[in-house]
Amino acid sequence: MQAWPGLSADLFGPGDQLSAELNNLPRHLAAAGSHLRIHHAPSFIRQDQRLSDALRRGGETSMAMMLAYLASGQAVAGVSAGNTGALMALSRRALGTVAGIPRPAICTAIPTRGDGRCYLLDLGANVDVAPARLVDFALMGEVMARHVDGIAAPRVALLNVGSEGTKGSETVREADALLAEMGALNYIGFVEGNGIFAGSADVVVCDGFVGNAVLKASEGLARMLIERVQATFESHWSSRVVGMLARPALRRLKGELDPVRYNGASLLGLDGIVIKSHGSAEATGFSYAVLRAAQEVSRGLPTQLDLELGGRI
Amino acid sequence: MQAWPGLSADLFGPGDQLSAELNNLPRHLAAAGSHLRIHHAPSFIRQDQRLSDALRRGGETSMAMMLAYLASGQAVAGVSAGNTGALMALSRRALGTVAGIPRPAICTAIPTRGDGRCYLLDLGANVDVAPARLVDFALMGEVMARHVDGIAAPRVALLNVGSEGTKGSETVREADALLAEMGALNYIGFVEGNGIFAGSADVVVCDGFVGNAVLKASEGLARMLIERVQATFESHWSSRVVGMLARPALRRLKGELDPVRYNGASLLGLDGIVIKSHGSAEATGFSYAVLRAAQEVSRGLPTQLDLELGGRI
Repeated sequence: MQAWPGLSADLFGPGDQLSAELNNLPRHLAAAGSHLRIHHAPSFIRQDQRLSDALRRGGETSMAMMLAYLASGQAVAGVSAGNTGALMALSRRALGTVAGIPRPAICTAIPTRGDGRCYLLDLGANVDVAPARLVDFALMGEVMARHVDGIAAPRVALLNVGSEGTKGSETVREADALLAEMGALNYIGFVEGNGIFAGSADVVVCDGFVGNAVLKASEGLARMLIERVQATFESHWSSRVVGMLARPALRRLKGELDPVRYNGASLLGLDGIVIKSHGSAEATGFSYAVLRAAQEVSRGLPTQLDLELGGRI
Repeated sequence: MQAWPGLSADLFGPGDQLSAELNNLPRHLAAAGSHLRIHHAPSFIRQDQRLSDALRRGGETSMAMMLAYLASGQAVAGVSAGNTGALMALSRRALGTVAGIPRPAICTAIPTRGDGRCYLLDLGANVDVAPARLVDFALMGEVMARHVDGIAAPRVALLNVGSEGTKGSETVREADALLAEMGALNYIGFVEGNGIFAGSADVVVCDGFVGNAVLKASEGLARMLIERVQATFESHWSSRVVGMLARPALRRLKGELDPVRYNGASLLGLDGIVIKSHGSAEATGFSYAVLRAAQEVSRGLPTQLDLELGGRI
């Protein structure tokens, strides 16, 4: 709130708990409280709740109340750290999609070599998708990279297995043929998994099953490597001394590698801005998700998607 | 060769080039040359060669000659850094499979938290597989972990997307039902991508498309993070000094993180031992692939697969 003095936020959840949290804010943050409004929600959607159940009982939950508020135009963006499947389903019901997009996708920015970033989508909203849906994802990701990141002609690629031997699934080959025909798109063809981090594409498109597995494996690997870097500098006597001296460098490094830095996945294709924060995000991580929402608001992302993709999808 | 005095190796490739390389060995390695036999092959399979072409013209290539030699019983294992698709296809033709396994899989060991390892398969030999094939992969991976790593009851898991909301593809759900019915197997259910590195399973099974994407993305991420660790210690004056002091710790760390350390993927399910080395592996990396082959030879892996899985698949 201090970083964005103009920002005001509506909080949806158990009123008592939210009030107690606000009253416990450290003194230097207390002023921020005046920009926060609490909306009491009688229930919430659990992480393990069945989708059908969440849709049926949605109305009185904090997530559905937040989305109804957003749909009514009283807020410009919604951020949630809740159940991803329920957030996507309830968002679609409350907001609908733009440009005739049949299936919104989950999309996040991945850090790449050379300080770049790459948008990866879909991350789990759609499994077993048809080739035409992969094309939609490519078009949406391209609009995102162009408008939010200001890249003139984002390089769009399809994730595939090695060109050696197996040439990928039928779905991917069909999507490749469709994308290759699109003159206006800077489509660069297939990349393999290592291409995501190599910085060779600005947008990498895949089925939600693959994207989810890749993203979560990457988070797991990053966590393991950070632990090993720390353990290496704490293990031996000599490196313990070095470790103490190296602490500032290690702290900087951890900040760079920490997945939290890129926290905030966009539910792309909705007629509204909804950002999913990592469920385990703490305050700093959550603030990145809010920042992501603010960026998409300032670029009018849904309007751009509608203008550019309306009639094409 | 010095590490395994009993080892003798047959090299298949362009005779002139191989002879020249052996003549250029440093003096302290020259003795090893006596354990190496050169077999001249008039041609070889290119990385970008079409599979149909490789199969048709295979006979006179170094890869096919090596596999024929292996199939004739003159060698106990084959190691190649060549075209993966061709290696799998030619190996199947030359060696066949054991235990009625219809589709061999590519399998490698992934380092996990707590110094463990996890076998991930399939890594790209089979895309769009039926649920029954995922079950085969689970059974083969389990035999591998039990016999080669000596784990009494390896924990076997299926890779899936988050249990929140979407519950994965139909294929994965069917495979889950089949595996859950197998009493003898220590099947622990679904893991998400982060579970691979968390050390929560000894064997993780997935479609070849997913496994390939996860493995290659992980290699790309590891490379990026190693670069950043080094750059962090070289960037500022103060950390340059620390970097010099930290050099031994960094070297140790790089050794631990380097993907080469686990170089060597098994073509699992063949009636013979064939190991695929990374195409970009240098001498040390290639020696790990040879070590992998030697381990599988000493455990008689194909025989174990045949004994345990014969009649079950």
